[in-house]
Amino acid sequence: MKTIKVYQTRAYGPEARFELVEIPAPKLSSGQILIEVKATSLNPMDNKILRHELRGPELPAILHGDVSGVVSAVGPNVDDFIVGNEVYACAGGFIGTSGVLAEFMVADVRLVARKPSSLSFIESAALPLVVITAWESLIDSAKILEGEHVLIHGGIGGVGHVAVQLAKAKGARVATTVSSKEAAKMARNFGADDIIYYRDETVENYVQRLTNNNGFDVVYDTVGGPNFENSLQAVRTYGRVVTVFTGPEATVLDLKTAFFKGVSIHTQNMSIPLITGKGREHHGTILKEAAKLADAGKLKPLIDPHHFTFAEANEAHAFFESKKYLGKIVLTP
Amino acid sequence: MKTIKVYQTRAYGPEARFELVEIPAPKLSSGQILIEVKATSLNPMDNKILRHELRGPELPAILHGDVSGVVSAVGPNVDDFIVGNEVYACAGGFIGTSGVLAEFMVADVRLVARKPSSLSFIESAALPLVVITAWESLIDSAKILEGEHVLIHGGIGGVGHVAVQLAKAKGARVATTVSSKEAAKMARNFGADDIIYYRDETVENYVQRLTNNNGFDVVYDTVGGPNFENSLQAVRTYGRVVTVFTGPEATVLDLKTAFFKGVSIHTQNMSIPLITGKGREHHGTILKEAAKLADAGKLKPLIDPHHFTFAEANEAHAFFESKKYLGKIVLTP
Repeated sequence: MKTIKVYQTRAYGPEARFELVEIPAPKLSSGQILIEVKATSLNPMDNKILRHELRGPELPAILHGDVSGVVSAVGPNVDDFIVGNEVYACAGGFIGTSGVLAEFMVADVRLVARKPSSLSFIESAALPLVVITAWESLIDSAKILEGEHVLIHGGIGGVGHVAVQLAKAKGARVATTVSSKEAAKMARNFGADDIIYYRDETVENYVQRLTNNNGFDVVYDTVGGPNFENSLQAVRTYGRVVTVFTGPEATVLDLKTAFFKGVSIHTQNMSIPLITGKGREHHGTILKEAAKLADAGKLKPLIDPHHFTFAEANEAHAFFESKKYLGKIVLTP
Repeated sequence: MKTIKVYQTRAYGPEARFELVEIPAPKLSSGQILIEVKATSLNPMDNKILRHELRGPELPAILHGDVSGVVSAVGPNVDDFIVGNEVYACAGGFIGTSGVLAEFMVADVRLVARKPSSLSFIESAALPLVVITAWESLIDSAKILEGEHVLIHGGIGGVGHVAVQLAKAKGARVATTVSSKEAAKMARNFGADDIIYYRDETVENYVQRLTNNNGFDVVYDTVGGPNFENSLQAVRTYGRVVTVFTGPEATVLDLKTAFFKGVSIHTQNMSIPLITGKGREHHGTILKEAAKLADAGKLKPLIDPHHFTFAEANEAHAFFESKKYLGKIVLTP
């Protein structure tokens, strides 16, 4: 193998376009494996990088972070993987790392785990970024405890539907916001105990109805922007709010309500180990634990029925931008 | 005793003035004690309430929260105190509670502890609010660990000088910001390991000099406002910042740097148990523990040499507003 096929963009912004090119086959350094890519999913971060709302890899760039695939070569000092292993990871596509829209990708083994054996490559590719995000948010930062009442905004969103399942797996009582009866049904299937139709009910109302006016122990704000104030209103005195980074424009926040309740605010950004190179082992560990949950029937991804190939990556991003997708958009070679 | 002397204000704002009046002697309810007041201290909150920057008790109002004194009567269902006990507390002066500028004050026993036997009434009155604030910030919220590197902004400020001592008592390495050599000497006496002259050194510089560019594990922002961005710059990736409420106007914060580093932000407001009536036992417990630290020589207050009587409360607040005070301003009857 002297060359590999990749989908590259030569520009960021509105004019960005993925194009098929051949590049020299990558060489493996210590601690790296080569993954034959079987599927990737589209996360909001990938689109923000494509549209230049966030800094991405140097141009021309191969994008996307989530991968599922088969180990096709192993570099020096790799003990945990052999050729043929079926794996998944969020392994690139940010500043400083190459991405997944390719025949093969090089991955740092610290970021990689064996994929859940009960899930397909398509299903596995939908999980890494959102599982790591929800895990770091609820388990590492908010440290949710059994029996706590957790409000998750956006219960069938990419991060939200995984967060609902992780919180349930940890023994929490889960309330979630949805916009329709169909969404409510899906959220209940993921384990949500309490459904909030956020378009029809005020925060004051549902805090009264569901928590007897005490507020939630933990609120997970996967929505960002103006929803942050709703999160502060919904959390109890001394409670914890976790807020996901939704872009550089949405970071100026009014903490008045937080101060009056002594709230702790955990900011969440799963790309740090990818960008800095530090703490990557933890991502591999999270995916290992998540695979166990999936194989125990406690974690499954919500995948949009529209399927795209890598050659249709531009269409996939246009579909993402239409905001008409459900859960995760997955692409296969 | 049919009446007691108190210092009341009939207005909030620039026209507020403490005036001596006699009011009927208060009656004790279950769980309350009467304290013969020996001293109080002036906290920024007291002044903000006086000047109507924060909501206070209904007018006419007796203000100030910190008290040291002697138990002179005990209400029903009080087991932990007897007449004659020397006590200290932050026991009132916020919305819904009466304050300390009086001959006698009624206090909820849950808020009260025996004063440190090694400290005078004047010294003891300087501690409650700032000890509770620093304790809730560093021990309850940031959960500082032995060996962690903690930056405390304002190392000889009211909260700051107590925070330095608590962090040292917990085994942390403490850096603190000061503005002069005299202040540096005082901060070192309180145990500070690393001194930062914040007027002369950039955040970038001292993070490089003191943490090898890794950032501090915990930053305690007792200053607020524009200093918050300095705190975010100084903290390490995944570190914790605790920020003290400095007024309703200083709560709109840019969390961009926080998101990029995955920082946790703990908002601090010690008045919650006073205002809501919930969680007051914890304040009593903190003061009990703080008395042990004081008696072990690990905690002492910094008291401004200007002494005021209750009759000079207006002058004491004017002196506070001049910003020329050091540590805590104490008043005695």
